[in-house]
Amino acid sequence: MDQDSMRRYAKLLVGTCAGIGEGGRLRIVGEACHRPLMHALAEEAYRRGARLVRLEHPDPHLVRIRIDHSQDAWLDDVSAQLEREAEVYVEEAWASIVLVGDEDPLALEGADMGRVQRQSRARSKAIAKFRESMMQNRQVWCIAPAPTEAWAKAVFEMAGRDPGPAPAESLWAALVPILGLDAEDPALALSRHAQTLMARARTLDSLHLDSLHFEGEGTDLRVGLSPRSRWIGGGSKTPDGQFFLPNHPTEEVFTSPDARRTEGRASCTRPLRVLGSLVQGAWFEFEAGQVVRWGARENLEALSAWLDTDPGARRLGEVALVDATGPIFACGLVFDNGLIDENAASHIALGAAYTEAFEGTEGLDEAGREALGFNESLVHNDYMIGSEKVDVTGRDASGREIPILRAGRFVI
Amino acid sequence: MDQDSMRRYAKLLVGTCAGIGEGGRLRIVGEACHRPLMHALAEEAYRRGARLVRLEHPDPHLVRIRIDHSQDAWLDDVSAQLEREAEVYVEEAWASIVLVGDEDPLALEGADMGRVQRQSRARSKAIAKFRESMMQNRQVWCIAPAPTEAWAKAVFEMAGRDPGPAPAESLWAALVPILGLDAEDPALALSRHAQTLMARARTLDSLHLDSLHFEGEGTDLRVGLSPRSRWIGGGSKTPDGQFFLPNHPTEEVFTSPDARRTEGRASCTRPLRVLGSLVQGAWFEFEAGQVVRWGARENLEALSAWLDTDPGARRLGEVALVDATGPIFACGLVFDNGLIDENAASHIALGAAYTEAFEGTEGLDEAGREALGFNESLVHNDYMIGSEKVDVTGRDASGREIPILRAGRFVI
Repeated sequence: MDQDSMRRYAKLLVGTCAGIGEGGRLRIVGEACHRPLMHALAEEAYRRGARLVRLEHPDPHLVRIRIDHSQDAWLDDVSAQLEREAEVYVEEAWASIVLVGDEDPLALEGADMGRVQRQSRARSKAIAKFRESMMQNRQVWCIAPAPTEAWAKAVFEMAGRDPGPAPAESLWAALVPILGLDAEDPALALSRHAQTLMARARTLDSLHLDSLHFEGEGTDLRVGLSPRSRWIGGGSKTPDGQFFLPNHPTEEVFTSPDARRTEGRASCTRPLRVLGSLVQGAWFEFEAGQVVRWGARENLEALSAWLDTDPGARRLGEVALVDATGPIFACGLVFDNGLIDENAASHIALGAAYTEAFEGTEGLDEAGREALGFNESLVHNDYMIGSEKVDVTGRDASGREIPILRAGRFVI
Repeated sequence: MDQDSMRRYAKLLVGTCAGIGEGGRLRIVGEACHRPLMHALAEEAYRRGARLVRLEHPDPHLVRIRIDHSQDAWLDDVSAQLEREAEVYVEEAWASIVLVGDEDPLALEGADMGRVQRQSRARSKAIAKFRESMMQNRQVWCIAPAPTEAWAKAVFEMAGRDPGPAPAESLWAALVPILGLDAEDPALALSRHAQTLMARARTLDSLHLDSLHFEGEGTDLRVGLSPRSRWIGGGSKTPDGQFFLPNHPTEEVFTSPDARRTEGRASCTRPLRVLGSLVQGAWFEFEAGQVVRWGARENLEALSAWLDTDPGARRLGEVALVDATGPIFACGLVFDNGLIDENAASHIALGAAYTEAFEGTEGLDEAGREALGFNESLVHNDYMIGSEKVDVTGRDASGREIPILRAGRFVI
């Protein structure tokens, strides 16, 4: 990524996606290999008048060292540090930009998944309030991709393509149109794109759907919606009205379903990373909202450990529709990266639901929210089930069937 | 640094220097380029039963970006994060291993020193309690070197030597004997070395010195000691008796003087880094304990900004004696690195005094300690004034003169 592209990307993420302005605080999360891009983001934030920028470097190798060498008794241990850090992020209203792109996608390959899950769960619990605050859009967050050599090699290898002498640069070149950085005015283009998705969400709301039926590629799944389910797309707002884009790229419209009414079978059309391992060919069978049977062609152990996080990890928190004609699907690559792949294909998410996508949860406690069919969990992970061979049909309360996606394309 | 050397170094730092055992918490501080060594330290700690290991990556480039681009109003801003983090380090009794070695020694070169000092001072204030706790040895800390390419190039260039094709490896090779890693049993060799330094400290205590007189190489300095000054060398102890080595390598014996009784001129024999800049040819003139005139051949601005941190930054907190026949001096390199260079030559430190080196400060507040001649400051920096051409003579309360160092060598 040359200096100029980096600056364009930084402007788009810091300005358009996260909306950092005068006096804002920005937390930038990314592995140490992403420091040059993180520095470009920091510079852009300070140029816009940010008050303070902080970098956080997740370190999968350090996690692996702990998993392999820590005494069992200490695996659940977290420092009060982590909890207080999370508290301050909430109190001081920090915005987050999270860069995804693994320096070493195999860092956790072959690790004891039970131990990975234990330390990961303890960590999730410690920062629960902060995560919840972001899930509820009380503070700004944006997840965006950043290529690495190892990630790029894996992507081109999966596609059977030659990555050339500089794989990360080739991946970056593939991402440029997906991220809209080839537009004459990337900020304007992104705003227009967001408006298109918002309009689609309003159309879906106007259909008052009671359920969605996914069919094709091994999936025959009915997702029950709640009268409280609200469709979201193209961006979110904080309670004081600040607009932001939680994902870049974004191609989805999504809602949080009634977590008690999922039935049938879902088969994943793309691999995805769970507790650090690449899970291939995952499938789930639901009864009364719960995953009761599941499998995977590769790394089933990681998937099973993840499903054990808490009861909410086996229920849906989100269902999302994506047009298979979008630029991500069109580029023909599988990115082995939830952020990009989730915007290539329709998906379901197991785990925590979004309050913005489910009306009337304000002021309710956890039990109150669950009684409405709103799912609670320490985790949230997307599982892609859409493709150009998958149809989605809606049904409203009167039993009327409405085609939503045909052969992966929106028909509403 | 090959895997094997890294493991030996990790064993020495984590085991012998920091004494990490069952249930210990270890904070490892180092720039991102030191991750492989930091991971080796983490593994060694977990193997010894550590409860939790945390890595911190100082980022001089991020500091530079802030200095260059932040609005003036926010330069003093710190997050409550920093203060709480420091509190938890104290509450949870974290041990620290700090790796020194700049990835880019020029990261702050040419920056506005007033702005550097402002942000640095705000940071020091926020973590003051933690720093104080370490200075008082209430928790374990150890500072140790880690070579980088840029640092290695500078060291060999200064010495007019060819660093070879892999400068960092050459610097590492020069450090191996200095760090005692070539010993058959490095842990045993280090313990014996520590005992030698302790014995030297006991000898100095037994002389009941009232002052020290440094002469040679532009220095003619009298440092008044207090009857409370205690000589320390070869290691320290926490209140509950855990032995640790705050510096590796260590060649010094040191004490905290009566900060009101320094008189005369001190000329630095080695360059040193102040607020990120390499200060060359620094000198100070003291009257009644205070630096009243000072200068430098290079980067005077950084030195002046640093001296403005607080009143204590202009008084002595430490005086240290080092034999010029030690392995660091013997290797003939100037390391442009306070940790190593301070152990090559006798030095004074401006800034905070050490409670372990000054008796009877327990239970006193800041004013009470200052009334005894104990120096308080947010900072502490060593300034090397010793060499093989510098003599040090002690004088006791009866006026008897006792030669301590002659031509840089101990004669007691």
